[in-house]
Amino acid sequence: MGPFRDVPNLRTPPLGRRLRLGFVGGGRGGNVGYWHYNGVRLSGHWDVVAGALSRDPDTASQSAADWCIAEDRSYLSFEDMAEAEAARDDGIEAVSICTPNFTHFPIANAFLDRGIDVILDKPMTTAVEDAEMLVAKARDLGLILAVTYPYGHHAMAMQAAQLIEEGAIGTISQVIVEYVQDWATAPDEQSEMASNWRRDPAKVGRTSAVGDIGTHALQMLRAVTKLEAEEIRADLHVCGAPKALDDTAFIKLKLSNGAPGLIWITEAAPGNHCGLRFRVFGDKGGLSWDQEFPEQLKLSPLNEPDRIYLRGQGAGMSPAAERWTHLPRGHGEALTDAWSNLYAEIGTAIAARRAGEHERLTSCHYPSGVDGLIGVRFMNACADSGDNGSSWVKVDNSGV
Amino acid sequence: MGPFRDVPNLRTPPLGRRLRLGFVGGGRGGNVGYWHYNGVRLSGHWDVVAGALSRDPDTASQSAADWCIAEDRSYLSFEDMAEAEAARDDGIEAVSICTPNFTHFPIANAFLDRGIDVILDKPMTTAVEDAEMLVAKARDLGLILAVTYPYGHHAMAMQAAQLIEEGAIGTISQVIVEYVQDWATAPDEQSEMASNWRRDPAKVGRTSAVGDIGTHALQMLRAVTKLEAEEIRADLHVCGAPKALDDTAFIKLKLSNGAPGLIWITEAAPGNHCGLRFRVFGDKGGLSWDQEFPEQLKLSPLNEPDRIYLRGQGAGMSPAAERWTHLPRGHGEALTDAWSNLYAEIGTAIAARRAGEHERLTSCHYPSGVDGLIGVRFMNACADSGDNGSSWVKVDNSGV
Amino acid sequence: MGPFRDVPNLRTPPLGRRLRLGFVGGGRGGNVGYWHYNGVRLSGHWDVVAGALSRDPDTASQSAADWCIAEDRSYLSFEDMAEAEAARDDGIEAVSICTPNFTHFPIANAFLDRGIDVILDKPMTTAVEDAEMLVAKARDLGLILAVTYPYGHHAMAMQAAQLIEEGAIGTISQVIVEYVQDWATAPDEQSEMASNWRRDPAKVGRTSAVGDIGTHALQMLRAVTKLEAEEIRADLHVCGAPKALDDTAFIKLKLSNGAPGLIWITEAAPGNHCGLRFRVFGDKGGLSWDQEFPEQLKLSPLNEPDRIYLRGQGAGMSPAAERWTHLPRGHGEALTDAWSNLYAEIGTAIAARRAGEHERLTSCHYPSGVDGLIGVRFMNACADSGDNGSSWVKVDNSGV
Amino acid sequence: MGPFRDVPNLRTPPLGRRLRLGFVGGGRGGNVGYWHYNGVRLSGHWDVVAGALSRDPDTASQSAADWCIAEDRSYLSFEDMAEAEAARDDGIEAVSICTPNFTHFPIANAFLDRGIDVILDKPMTTAVEDAEMLVAKARDLGLILAVTYPYGHHAMAMQAAQLIEEGAIGTISQVIVEYVQDWATAPDEQSEMASNWRRDPAKVGRTSAVGDIGTHALQMLRAVTKLEAEEIRADLHVCGAPKALDDTAFIKLKLSNGAPGLIWITEAAPGNHCGLRFRVFGDKGGLSWDQEFPEQLKLSPLNEPDRIYLRGQGAGMSPAAERWTHLPRGHGEALTDAWSNLYAEIGTAIAARRAGEHERLTSCHYPSGVDGLIGVRFMNACADSGDNGSSWVKVDNSGV
Repeated sequence: MGPFRDVPNLRTPPLGRRLRLGFVGGGRGGNVGYWHYNGVRLSGHWDVVAGALSRDPDTASQSAADWCIAEDRSYLSFEDMAEAEAARDDGIEAVSICTPNFTHFPIANAFLDRGIDVILDKPMTTAVEDAEMLVAKARDLGLILAVTYPYGHHAMAMQAAQLIEEGAIGTISQVIVEYVQDWATAPDEQSEMASNWRRDPAKVGRTSAVGDIGTHALQMLRAVTKLEAEEIRADLHVCGAPKALDDTAFIKLKLSNGAPGLIWITEAAPGNHCGLRFRVFGDKGGLSWDQEFPEQLKLSPLNEPDRIYLRGQGAGMSPAAERWTHLPRGHGEALTDAWSNLYAEIGTAIAARRAGEHERLTSCHYPSGVDGLIGVRFMNACADSGDNGSSWVKVDNSGV
Repeated sequence: MGPFRDVPNLRTPPLGRRLRLGFVGGGRGGNVGYWHYNGVRLSGHWDVVAGALSRDPDTASQSAADWCIAEDRSYLSFEDMAEAEAARDDGIEAVSICTPNFTHFPIANAFLDRGIDVILDKPMTTAVEDAEMLVAKARDLGLILAVTYPYGHHAMAMQAAQLIEEGAIGTISQVIVEYVQDWATAPDEQSEMASNWRRDPAKVGRTSAVGDIGTHALQMLRAVTKLEAEEIRADLHVCGAPKALDDTAFIKLKLSNGAPGLIWITEAAPGNHCGLRFRVFGDKGGLSWDQEFPEQLKLSPLNEPDRIYLRGQGAGMSPAAERWTHLPRGHGEALTDAWSNLYAEIGTAIAARRAGEHERLTSCHYPSGVDGLIGVRFMNACADSGDNGSSWVKVDNSGV
Repeated sequence: MGPFRDVPNLRTPPLGRRLRLGFVGGGRGGNVGYWHYNGVRLSGHWDVVAGALSRDPDTASQSAADWCIAEDRSYLSFEDMAEAEAARDDGIEAVSICTPNFTHFPIANAFLDRGIDVILDKPMTTAVEDAEMLVAKARDLGLILAVTYPYGHHAMAMQAAQLIEEGAIGTISQVIVEYVQDWATAPDEQSEMASNWRRDPAKVGRTSAVGDIGTHALQMLRAVTKLEAEEIRADLHVCGAPKALDDTAFIKLKLSNGAPGLIWITEAAPGNHCGLRFRVFGDKGGLSWDQEFPEQLKLSPLNEPDRIYLRGQGAGMSPAAERWTHLPRGHGEALTDAWSNLYAEIGTAIAARRAGEHERLTSCHYPSGVDGLIGVRFMNACADSGDNGSSWVKVDNSGV
Repeated sequence: MGPFRDVPNLRTPPLGRRLRLGFVGGGRGGNVGYWHYNGVRLSGHWDVVAGALSRDPDTASQSAADWCIAEDRSYLSFEDMAEAEAARDDGIEAVSICTPNFTHFPIANAFLDRGIDVILDKPMTTAVEDAEMLVAKARDLGLILAVTYPYGHHAMAMQAAQLIEEGAIGTISQVIVEYVQDWATAPDEQSEMASNWRRDPAKVGRTSAVGDIGTHALQMLRAVTKLEAEEIRADLHVCGAPKALDDTAFIKLKLSNGAPGLIWITEAAPGNHCGLRFRVFGDKGGLSWDQEFPEQLKLSPLNEPDRIYLRGQGAGMSPAAERWTHLPRGHGEALTDAWSNLYAEIGTAIAARRAGEHERLTSCHYPSGVDGLIGVRFMNACADSGDNGSSWVKVDNSGV
C-alpha cells in the first residue's frame, strides 16, 4: 500500500538498503529485460550493479551504460559474471535472467551453484527435466527461485482471487482465459515484438505461442481460481504469416474440480495487443478482468447489478489487493506497477531469507519454481496433444 | 433507410397495403412470440389478423384480445386455423410459427400445404429429414419459407459482412463466436427465460443450448463471414443447475476456407444475458461486434487505430447496412429494430412473390429454409460428436 | 412489462381496440414524424388513419400511401383535417403534431377546439402566452394535452428517478446534463438533420439549439431529479458553421433545492450524435446515464464499487422501470422503445379518460402541457439572459 | 521510446550517471511526494540522496530510511538542507518541493539562491507576486525552474496536442475540460486524500479546489490546445461536506482564439476519482481523452468513424508521443509513467544545462515557471470573479 494509508509500504526495502541485482540478458534490442528493469527500479528494492546484457561487446557496453552499471561489472558471458560476482564482497545477491528460453537452464544453474538467488523469466526451461532439476536444486540449497509471471501481480487480479476464495461467485463451473495479440499476423520482420529464436524449435522448445503467452494464461487461471488443469487437449494453429511453430492455440481443460476450462491464445488477432483476459463463472456469480484495463474488475452476482471494483476503492478490497495498491483510486497503475509488485515481493523474500525471517518469507507472494515447472509441463503436454491429433493428455501438477 | 434520406423506406409495404399475418404460438406466458410481434408491428408491413396463440382456451382468448385479433379468428388448433384461414377471401397470407421445436414440422407442413407462406422460428425442426422435407416442399410449391434468426439483421452485423466482402480484413484466418447467457445458472423454476420443453429431449431434440443459442451463433458466423462449418467437434456440458441436456458447449470448427473457428455457448455464465459476439480476424485486420451494444462495430486494421463504425454514420457505410438504418446515428436502434428489419424483408419478399416481381424477390435478404436446415444439421452433428467422445463430425452444408 | 413476466403488458390497449390517430406533419423529408410513427406502431395502442402530412400535394399523397392512410383521409391542411375528422363517426380520437415550432399553437388549438386530444412535439410553442393558453384550454375542456419528450421514457432514466426518490444518492448537491450533437458543425446543407426553419427566428422562436435540445435536457433533469431550475444564466454561442441563432449554450442553473446545475448543449461537437447524458451527485452517491447506451445506468455509492443497473435485471429494479421493460435483459431496447413507452402511456391515458377511469388516468406517466410550458419559459428565459449579457433570470415553474 | 525501437531511450540519463536529487516534503503521511518519488525512480535519471521530508524528527527519520537516504543527509528544515547540500562536493543538483502551497515560495527561493535547480509542485505559490519573483530569479540565475503538472505527460495527451497542431480537428470552436473527484463529498476526516491545510485559507491561498485540481485542468487545456484563457468567470461552490473554501467550480473561459471554453472541477462527485478529461471540438473533428483510461485517445473526424489511438500503436503516432512510449501497445502505462516522463524530461534538461547543450535543453518538454505562474494568476482570477458575483475577469498570460 502507498503511504496514503497508514501501513507498511511494499516499496520500502526491509533491510534498510537496496539489494544488489545483476541481469543476464536485457540489453538493447530486447523487450522483456527492459520491462523487468522498469519494475526493478520502481519497486525501490534493488540496485542494478552488474550485467551480462549481451554477448555482443558493443551492445553489452552501451546497455550497461544505459543502466549506469560500472564498466568492470559489465560481463560478456554469464559464466564470467557468476564467477566474478560470487567472488566479490559486494557481489550481486540475486540475478534476473531474461534470455531466450533454451538458455535459462544453464544460466540459472550456474548462479544457483554459486549461492545466488535466481529470478527467471518464463517459461522456466524448454524441457521438463531441466525445470525439475532447477526446482530441486534451489530447494536443496535453500535459495529463492522465482519465475516472472507479472500479470497476476496486478492488484485487481489478486482481488479476483480473493473474491473467489471468499465465495463471491460460489462453486466454479467454467473458466475462460484468453491471451490475444496481433504482432505475428504479418511476417516477423515487420514486428517490433518478434525475436528470431521464438520461431526456432531448437531454441524455443516444442511450441512457440503456447510457451510464450499460453503459460501466462495458465498461470493466471491457476492464480485466480486456485484450480489446476489436470487434463488438456490442444489444437495448435498458424493463423498469422507462415512460421515453423504455432502462433495460435485452442486448449480445452479439465480442471481439478471437474469444471471445463478453455484457454485461447493467439498472436494473430489484429486489434489485440496484450489481451490477457479471464472470465470465471460459478453458481453464484461471474468475474471478469482484462489486462488492458487492469484497474477495473467486474463482479456479476447472479441476477444482481454488476459491481465494478476499482483498485484503491477501499470498501470491499482485500488486504492482499491493498498490499499491491500504491496510488489512490483513479490515479492509474498499470503493467510496470505489476512488475514492481512482483520485484518487491521477491526482494522482500530474499531479504527475509537472508535475515532468517521465516514468517515474513512465507508471506511473500510470487510464482515459485514449482509454478514455473507446471508451466513447462503444460507447454509440453500441449505439444504432445498436438502431435497426437489433439488427444487428451494428463498434466502432472505436483512439485518435485 | 429512414425517411431522413431520400431513399425508399424499408418500413413502407410495397403493395400499398399491409399483408395479413397469423401466428401459431406466441400467447401469454411465452417470450419469443412477443418478440416476433414487436418486430411485426414496427416493420409496418403486416396486420396480425388471426392466431392459434395457445391450446388453452382462456390463454388463447386473452392473448388474441391483447393483440386485437377478432374473436372468430382466434383458433385453438393450428389445424383449424390453417383450414379456416385458407377458406377465407381475406385469409392470412403468411403464418409465423413460434411454438416449441418439435411442433414446427407438422405446423409448417399444414400451412405450406394450403399455399400459405411460412415464417418459422429456429431451430427449424428437430430432425434433419423434417427440415429437408419442408425445404423441398416450399421450393416445389413456390412458397416463401423463412427462418427467424434476427441477430444478423442488426445493421452493424450486415456492415461487418460487407466490410469482410470488401476485403477490409483480408483473408479470414480465425473466427470466434460466442453466445453467452446466464438464465440457466440457477434451476429453471427461478428463471423467466426457462421453458419446460427446452429440457425435454422428446420436445427439444438431441441438444438444448446448442439448438437454441448455438444455431444463432452458427448463423451469425455464416452471415458475417460467408464461410461454412465443414467439420465440427463439440464438447457438451452442464455448467448450471443439473438438467437433462446441455446448457454449455465448446464447438471447434473447420471452416470452408481452412481456417479454425470456435463457437462457445452457454446459458450459465452469470453477468451475461444476450451476449452474442463475434470476432473475425484476417491477415489485414479484425472485426468485432457485441449484440448487447449493437450500434457499434469495431474494425481494427492491422497496426492502425481502431475504427468504430456507428450505425447511421454515413461515411463508409454499405448500402446494405443503410437499408436497415431507420434513425439517425446516436438515436439508438436495438433488437426490435432487427426483428423489424427481418419482418420487413420477409414482407417485401412475399409481396414481390405475389406480384411476380422476381428481381425484387431475389434482392430480399432473410434466412431461408436452407439456412434453417443447415442449423438443424449442425445441432445434430454436435449431438453426434458429443455421443462419440467429442470426435470430429462432418456437416453437410448443401441444400436439398 | 413484457409477457415474460406475469403482469399486464403496457403494449396492450386497454379498450380492447386501438385508438384512431391522425398526424399533422411527419411526411417524407422530415425526421421527427417518422420517429413518432415508429413508436406509435410499436406501442400497439394506435391505428394511424388520417393525416395532413405535408402542404405539398404530392408529398402528402406519397406519405399517406407510405403509412397506408386512405386517400380520402389524407388532407392538405390541418384546418380541413380537423373539421372533416371531427365530423366523422370514425374520426380520429387524437392528433400528433410534428410540424415546425411556430405552427404548433394554431394547430393544437384547432384540434382541442373540436374535442380531439392533442399530442404535441416539443417545444410546445415559441411564445410563453401561447403555451399557457393551450394548457388552460385543455384543462378547461378536460382533454389530454401531452408533449413528446421521449428520452425520459427509457426504462433506465425512470430507474434513475426512482433510485433518487428512494434516497440512493442522498441529497442532491449538483447536476450536470448535457445534450451534445454534431450535425450543425458543417453548414446545414451538408446535414441530414438540418431543417431551414430551425435557423429562422420567425419560425423557431428566439433560440434554436436551446429550444430544440436544450428543452430535452431540462425535461430530463426535471424528470430524474424532481428539481426545478429556478434561476438560469445562459451563454449562447455559434460554434459550428455561421448561423442566425445559437447552436451551443452553457446554461448555469440554480435548482429548487439550492444546488447548482449545468446544462451544456451543442450541435457542433464532432463525434457526438444524440449525446443526452446526465450525472447527478448527492452526499451518498452519484448516478450517470447516457442516451446512446440507454440500457445501463451507473450508480456510484460513495466509496463503494459502482453498480451497473441493466434494464430487465430484475433485482433492485423499480416497478416504474419494469413497466417500461418489454424484452429480457441483454435483449436491447432503444429509442423507438422509449417512444413506444410514451405513446403507450398517452394511449392508456386517453383510453382511461374516455372510459372515465380516473385512477388509471392519473397513473399514466407522460409529459403534460405544464411540462411543455415550463420548457417554453426556459427557452425564453435563456434568450432573455443572452440578450442581457448572460445575466441571471428567474424562471416561473408553476402551472396556469 | 522503449528499447524495443531503435531510438534513444528517454529513461537513459544523458550524462552517463544519475543526477543527485533532494526532496523537501514527501515524508510518510503525505500523498504527493510519494507520487513524485515513484516517477523519479522509474525515470532512471535520479538518485535521491537527501531530504527534509518532515519537520517531525521521527517521521523525517523513518521516511529517509524508507527511501534509503543516509542519516546525515536527512534534515529537519529546508534551510539546513539547502545550506548543507550546497556546501558538499556531492551535494544535490536539484530539489523537489512537495510541501503545502504557502511554503513553496520561501523554499524554492532558498534553493535557487544556492544555485540548485528547482522542481516545484503546483500550484507554484499562493500569491502572484511570489510566482513572478521565482520566475524572474530562475531566469536571471540561469537555473531550471520546473512545475510538476504530470497529467500532460501521458503519451496520449501529447498525441492529442500533436493531432491538433497538425489540423486533425481544424479550427478549435469549443473546449470542455473537467477534473472530477469525490474525496471531499464526506467530511475530510473520512478521506485518505484530505489534508488540513487545503481548507485553511492562510495556507492554501484564496481557493482550494481551483488551486488544486483547477490548475491541472487549465494546464491540460493549455498543453493540448495551445490556447490561453484570456478571460474567466467562475462560480465557486461547496457541494460536499461543509468547508471554508470551494470544493467545486464552474469556470467559463474566453479562449485566445475567441472560442468558448468550460472548466468544471469538483471534489464532490461520487464515483469520480481522478477524472481529468478533455473534449476539444473543431470544424473538422473532435478529440477526447480521460485520465482514468490514459492509453486511448479518441479522434472523431466529422462524419467519419471514430478512430481510437492506442499508445504504442505506431501508425499515425507523433514522434513526441513516441518519445513518451516505453512499453509496446496494450502493455499498459499509467500515472507513474507520466510522472516518469516528466522527471526524465526535467533530468535531461538539467543535464543539458550543466553540459551547456543548448539545443538539447530547449528540446526538453516540461511545464516551466511561466506555466506555473499562469496557473497562480488563474486561481487568483477565479477568486476575484467569485468575490465579485461571478463577474468576468481578465487573466494575464504573459511571462515576467
